[in-house]
Amino acid sequence: MSVDEALAQLANLPYEELGFAKIDHHRALRRGFPEVIFGPGKTAEQIASIVERLASSASKVLVTKVDQECLNTVKRLVPDAEYHPIARAITVNRAKDAPRRRGIMVLSGGTADIPIAEEAALTAELMGNEVERSYDVGVAGVHRLLDHLPRLRQAKVVVAVAGMEGALPSVVSGLVSVPVIAAPTSVGYGASLGGLAALLTMLNSCSAGVSVVNIDNGFGAGYLAALINR
Amino acid sequence: MSVDEALAQLANLPYEELGFAKIDHHRALRRGFPEVIFGPGKTAEQIASIVERLASSASKVLVTKVDQECLNTVKRLVPDAEYHPIARAITVNRAKDAPRRRGIMVLSGGTADIPIAEEAALTAELMGNEVERSYDVGVAGVHRLLDHLPRLRQAKVVVAVAGMEGALPSVVSGLVSVPVIAAPTSVGYGASLGGLAALLTMLNSCSAGVSVVNIDNGFGAGYLAALINR
Amino acid sequence: MSVDEALAQLANLPYEELGFAKIDHHRALRRGFPEVIFGPGKTAEQIASIVERLASSASKVLVTKVDQECLNTVKRLVPDAEYHPIARAITVNRAKDAPRRRGIMVLSGGTADIPIAEEAALTAELMGNEVERSYDVGVAGVHRLLDHLPRLRQAKVVVAVAGMEGALPSVVSGLVSVPVIAAPTSVGYGASLGGLAALLTMLNSCSAGVSVVNIDNGFGAGYLAALINR
Amino acid sequence: MSVDEALAQLANLPYEELGFAKIDHHRALRRGFPEVIFGPGKTAEQIASIVERLASSASKVLVTKVDQECLNTVKRLVPDAEYHPIARAITVNRAKDAPRRRGIMVLSGGTADIPIAEEAALTAELMGNEVERSYDVGVAGVHRLLDHLPRLRQAKVVVAVAGMEGALPSVVSGLVSVPVIAAPTSVGYGASLGGLAALLTMLNSCSAGVSVVNIDNGFGAGYLAALINR
Amino acid sequence: MSVDEALAQLANLPYEELGFAKIDHHRALRRGFPEVIFGPGKTAEQIASIVERLASSASKVLVTKVDQECLNTVKRLVPDAEYHPIARAITVNRAKDAPRRRGIMVLSGGTADIPIAEEAALTAELMGNEVERSYDVGVAGVHRLLDHLPRLRQAKVVVAVAGMEGALPSVVSGLVSVPVIAAPTSVGYGASLGGLAALLTMLNSCSAGVSVVNIDNGFGAGYLAALINR
Amino acid sequence: MSVDEALAQLANLPYEELGFAKIDHHRALRRGFPEVIFGPGKTAEQIASIVERLASSASKVLVTKVDQECLNTVKRLVPDAEYHPIARAITVNRAKDAPRRRGIMVLSGGTADIPIAEEAALTAELMGNEVERSYDVGVAGVHRLLDHLPRLRQAKVVVAVAGMEGALPSVVSGLVSVPVIAAPTSVGYGASLGGLAALLTMLNSCSAGVSVVNIDNGFGAGYLAALINR
Amino acid sequence: MSVDEALAQLANLPYEELGFAKIDHHRALRRGFPEVIFGPGKTAEQIASIVERLASSASKVLVTKVDQECLNTVKRLVPDAEYHPIARAITVNRAKDAPRRRGIMVLSGGTADIPIAEEAALTAELMGNEVERSYDVGVAGVHRLLDHLPRLRQAKVVVAVAGMEGALPSVVSGLVSVPVIAAPTSVGYGASLGGLAALLTMLNSCSAGVSVVNIDNGFGAGYLAALINR
Amino acid sequence: MSVDEALAQLANLPYEELGFAKIDHHRALRRGFPEVIFGPGKTAEQIASIVERLASSASKVLVTKVDQECLNTVKRLVPDAEYHPIARAITVNRAKDAPRRRGIMVLSGGTADIPIAEEAALTAELMGNEVERSYDVGVAGVHRLLDHLPRLRQAKVVVAVAGMEGALPSVVSGLVSVPVIAAPTSVGYGASLGGLAALLTMLNSCSAGVSVVNIDNGFGAGYLAALINR
Repeated sequence: MSVDEALAQLANLPYEELGFAKIDHHRALRRGFPEVIFGPGKTAEQIASIVERLASSASKVLVTKVDQECLNTVKRLVPDAEYHPIARAITVNRAKDAPRRRGIMVLSGGTADIPIAEEAALTAELMGNEVERSYDVGVAGVHRLLDHLPRLRQAKVVVAVAGMEGALPSVVSGLVSVPVIAAPTSVGYGASLGGLAALLTMLNSCSAGVSVVNIDNGFGAGYLAALINR
Repeated sequence: MSVDEALAQLANLPYEELGFAKIDHHRALRRGFPEVIFGPGKTAEQIASIVERLASSASKVLVTKVDQECLNTVKRLVPDAEYHPIARAITVNRAKDAPRRRGIMVLSGGTADIPIAEEAALTAELMGNEVERSYDVGVAGVHRLLDHLPRLRQAKVVVAVAGMEGALPSVVSGLVSVPVIAAPTSVGYGASLGGLAALLTMLNSCSAGVSVVNIDNGFGAGYLAALINR
Repeated sequence: MSVDEALAQLANLPYEELGFAKIDHHRALRRGFPEVIFGPGKTAEQIASIVERLASSASKVLVTKVDQECLNTVKRLVPDAEYHPIARAITVNRAKDAPRRRGIMVLSGGTADIPIAEEAALTAELMGNEVERSYDVGVAGVHRLLDHLPRLRQAKVVVAVAGMEGALPSVVSGLVSVPVIAAPTSVGYGASLGGLAALLTMLNSCSAGVSVVNIDNGFGAGYLAALINR
Repeated sequence: MSVDEALAQLANLPYEELGFAKIDHHRALRRGFPEVIFGPGKTAEQIASIVERLASSASKVLVTKVDQECLNTVKRLVPDAEYHPIARAITVNRAKDAPRRRGIMVLSGGTADIPIAEEAALTAELMGNEVERSYDVGVAGVHRLLDHLPRLRQAKVVVAVAGMEGALPSVVSGLVSVPVIAAPTSVGYGASLGGLAALLTMLNSCSAGVSVVNIDNGFGAGYLAALINR
Repeated sequence: MSVDEALAQLANLPYEELGFAKIDHHRALRRGFPEVIFGPGKTAEQIASIVERLASSASKVLVTKVDQECLNTVKRLVPDAEYHPIARAITVNRAKDAPRRRGIMVLSGGTADIPIAEEAALTAELMGNEVERSYDVGVAGVHRLLDHLPRLRQAKVVVAVAGMEGALPSVVSGLVSVPVIAAPTSVGYGASLGGLAALLTMLNSCSAGVSVVNIDNGFGAGYLAALINR
Repeated sequence: MSVDEALAQLANLPYEELGFAKIDHHRALRRGFPEVIFGPGKTAEQIASIVERLASSASKVLVTKVDQECLNTVKRLVPDAEYHPIARAITVNRAKDAPRRRGIMVLSGGTADIPIAEEAALTAELMGNEVERSYDVGVAGVHRLLDHLPRLRQAKVVVAVAGMEGALPSVVSGLVSVPVIAAPTSVGYGASLGGLAALLTMLNSCSAGVSVVNIDNGFGAGYLAALINR
Repeated sequence: MSVDEALAQLANLPYEELGFAKIDHHRALRRGFPEVIFGPGKTAEQIASIVERLASSASKVLVTKVDQECLNTVKRLVPDAEYHPIARAITVNRAKDAPRRRGIMVLSGGTADIPIAEEAALTAELMGNEVERSYDVGVAGVHRLLDHLPRLRQAKVVVAVAGMEGALPSVVSGLVSVPVIAAPTSVGYGASLGGLAALLTMLNSCSAGVSVVNIDNGFGAGYLAALINR
Repeated sequence: MSVDEALAQLANLPYEELGFAKIDHHRALRRGFPEVIFGPGKTAEQIASIVERLASSASKVLVTKVDQECLNTVKRLVPDAEYHPIARAITVNRAKDAPRRRGIMVLSGGTADIPIAEEAALTAELMGNEVERSYDVGVAGVHRLLDHLPRLRQAKVVVAVAGMEGALPSVVSGLVSVPVIAAPTSVGYGASLGGLAALLTMLNSCSAGVSVVNIDNGFGAGYLAALINR
């Protein structure tokens, strides 16, 4: 493909103008998954419209970080939308029977980190993966993690979700030879600074093979895991 | 493999005690690449000893963020060590003829980001990859990046290195469907806060598929790219 | 004009003392637009009084960042006051028929940034400008922005509003030859730090011609655009 | 111009590949001024090469934040390059006889802020402007500023450079009806936090019409002033 | 007085043990004003008890930063307690007829800063001062401040209360020869960082004679003004 | 004990899998006290389940930072659970008659710090200690502290809880020869930055023998005091 | 004095234009002390010129934060200039025989804080005060401070200089009934954050009557003490 | 002992006035160890004087964070002073034959953390302890730590020194039942923020029993360990 062809392709990418949003219908083709809707700052009506338009051309839609009541508005336009209360996400999935790839493992440091871990797992599942979970394996009791060594070593990519001191990804990465996606959470108080402490811990990991997403960005961690697991 | 077997294996991992360091000779087997030596805070003598011990059992050794003069001390013990002045790294490579995997592309936003980009590229090359580079493609002249669209779309993983506002990874990620590893640099001044501004930009990327390593951590970006490209 | 004359003029600037505020009736003459009322921290009664006094001598009044219910209190004193729910502003405009200057374009990175973009557009419109808008053109899908190149290149000043990583102004500025006013928003979470990440991105723009206003300061961006477009 | 034409134009923008840099020869046409070279992080040899290539197609070249000794390397390739010791900049100007536009005034709060103020003034002059300067007019002695009221009121755009508490732009903006570009400097100590205090002051200006550039970014302030003064 | 005498005096300072508080009845003698009660974090019952105990030995009591409803609880024990809704303070004053010293002037930058300015003024009044106020004299319209020059120059100490960019104390201090107490407020948004921007501005004042109290600490500013005005 | 034995022991530590949590029943043996439940981020149902499971094998259970209403859910499964409203903790204690060790003294700087001081005291008591308390002994009236010198000097470890400027631990440590555990609290406003100011004060203590726990971490301070007092 | 008269006075304040500085000869009359020269960021030549011009009309000149070698340049123009190596200041004092006011006491927490304490004491002395000093009285050994109680209680204003945890001003303020000026220093390491920790401690003082100047601003503390002691 | 007796004792604590320092000769009796000299900010002459005076009454003296050349100045006054190059400390020890207590173990995460670990170990040794060391046991290779389990479990207190992500203390604390003193170091780069990242990690430890000292404060960690081990 020449540069001219690539640019021509880019110039002609279709999107649908809603006024408050430009729906990128082509993204599923270009990037392998349709546009994902980040919920906060959008009205329920705006979310419902975008879901409806996306669902008209894609078999899967994901809305993150929304409350249960947003589902009611969405369902009026897209009746098969579903709400996932722990992950706080809405999905439309019209390809539930597609086969799933194995290889992704999602860990959480504590119980309070589970919502973000579930957001990651749900995203990766919607993108066609079988996801293995193990929660509450934080470093204060490292034997709980060691107990998972055999399963850990079979993963092709690990998502490690942790708040407070955020040390889980470093310890995990030292035990495996695959990429570890570190997802800090805002769980904690005082000097956790809303998750900044965990974020900094993860960025400074002395174990190579760790990369980091934004605080509470379970979606981003799951999405990246799915890209790596392809 | 049972949990007991895994733990027994872990318990019996060999390491060599140097007093000031514990050499993890087993890491090449366990993680696919030998222990990497982070230079700062170690004396040239300590570095030389560690390189010598590692090189006694591994075919490749990497020391990051060291000055040229450190090489002299290392060469006394390991004569085939080499210095890479732009990447500021020492390598020993006794497997230069091994075949290299394609798939990694390293971009830099500006000229001043090249040392970190080269640290990433050198790491990935030492780990057995063919690395494609394109430097000075920052977002202030987006046509320079668009000109690389066809090559970009053939990569299996992209490392995007940028200082100042650090916007390159977001723009790149919107154009490709593979993982983008964002490596912020400390290039900039004033409100760049030693690279924190670029780091925050990358963590907040509105384009999914981006993950981030520490500021100036070219090594970490290259290492992760190699893991993903396996 | 001599220094003495200028100072004498300054010394005799009229203002009206309300106790809790000093109304600067002269500002429309001196600065080309009457004093603008920043809503937060003032009671509805204080706002209503100030609007009434300003409206007694000026044909236009603007109150920013207020709720709908504030309008009721204001309307008791100034019946032709209007509320703009998206921009969260109250206006009085008794010069609606005045001709409007073209030249200002307001862009938003995402849907959630629209309230601040609208605050900017509304301010510029009230100051006598025709404002062109294009929303949801963030850098994650740069083709949506490229699609506006011809319109962008006709603008005399661009206001680029964006939260999260805030990369929009840099990319826009690289495509045009006019001033770009960057307005960061508090849209985002975690490491967006309430908009600080977007703010820092914009301050570190590697593209010349960008200047920045406070986080969520749509008013300031629109006001400055109007000054530049005169 | 249609979108297709604009994109075609963008796709075909010429740049020259130097390996460590991509020279954007077209920028003078597209943005009205050639690419400007930010000195830090580049070797003197790299700077000299870029200056030479730019000077082959443009009549003006600007390098910012470099030491005097960099000039020697540059002069070997471009003998008519000049060094400006206070502004710490190198220029090539082969259009010195072109007429200059009036309208820009550059102020500094203190003596120590002059290098940044001169960087701003030099940039604007190179871009074809006549620049009026007044230095050491900080708010601790507001009469020194009031003494310039008549000249201030004739400016079409004001650049206000200040470190420490950075209050100058707010006070100036309250006295004029034109855009004020606030350039914070790193002058100060302790809680000035390397210029962050001045930057925050300027971003929080209660006077509309102020926008801000990065700390010590005299170039950016002068460039923007020139764009506005066109 | 010898060291032994001083220590003996210190050792025998009476206080009353309430379990949750130790009432320092001696403070009025030692420091010239009784202990002041900082409201937040205490229950209404605790506040009422402390007020009652203090009022048993002192003629004046001050409680800061409390809601109106706290007064009801206090009044049950101390019926002559009064609430000041703007300053959000409770006072008991059984020495209202005492003569008051002139010399303190309290300024506010804007309308929204008035609650903190009133907290300062109320404190100084309770400590026996006549307080002159002038509100909404911020630097965006410096003529409003200049209009008060003669009164300003008669003050013996000035309290300057300001949020947002917090430039008022610097400008005031340049016009007078007496101490200026700078009281930053949390008024503002975005990069005001809850008042930190104003605080930093004031700490970096280039005008000598300014000292600073905590954000929103109107009480501290008024107390210090009273000490200086003695 | 050999390394193999230690690891074998670690490998076989029992825990109970609840899905959302892994109950570490062995911790009371290994660490001398059962796992403690940090309340925030867990549902009342999750907390109740964990308490029930822990109480099935341990004689003491502690839940920190929970509201009174959480007790109702817990009591359904564990009827002898108790709520401590000031410390905001739930405890189960089936070994109330065990003898208690003396030696721990808990101080608070002010009345508003008492909840954290009580969390510390309660934790230490549950772990088998007799705790001496003295509250409201902050440095603004150092005589209140001096009055406790004899009791202070009998302590084997002191917990000093303070918000605002957090100077109490330094002063205390200068008076005793035992470890001082400094517990900063979030009491304060403005530049207290949610307790960061007190935390930094304590970390920078010029008096040796002070160590610090997280802001508002009364539990951690009490736990450590109990470990030291064994 | 009327407003017109005051403004006329302000308008006609004489200053001398040096190009790089505007000498405010009138400040000694207006503010009671001539302009003070902050050394950093000025060349020795600029400092010498300003000293010479100030000394032509004032009997006292102060330059702060300069090295010994700056004195040589200054002495060429003003032979009676003196250097104070501990305070790192240059003074000219042609009124050494004037009587001095008692009432100012300067304390330092440690030995390393003495340079800032001396800068404060020197400033106050130059402004006509007798200054009492006591150094190394930090809170780690509070008996050293208590030993000064009688002298402390005779002061009319206290300057308390301290780095590290910066607790000295709070403790002092609790012992006296006069204003305490808190001067934080950058003495410390790690979490002292260049003096920010001490600064925050002082701003959060729970003892009323404390106000704060910038980190290492001994001059500002001494100047303010002199204003208060008038 | 009554309060009066305690205060009398405090009032009469002897100290020796050197002008720049007040030597607290009594501290060895009061706190069990003589005053320790923090080197930075003191001249070599000041340090030598203080060492000489302390050594005149105490058998042990410790100076921290000094260069080798400081020793020369000290030796002129105290010939038996010794320098410890890794710990960067000077000691005088005239009680070398005293028996030493076992129970303290000092760990370091990496090789670059050893200087701080040695500062801790040296301090504890000087205070009469036998110290067991194990260096380079960071969490990236947790098997190196597990290999020390039997020795770890015999310690009465553990000092865990680590830079970068600082996760070592949490993992260690989960394996032992004794106090863990966490000492963060400034080892790292970029987002390690000079050790703040490690400090925050340690403060947020999810494992109870951990307390934290200042960044690079090896002395403080060793001192506290000695107090606990008494």
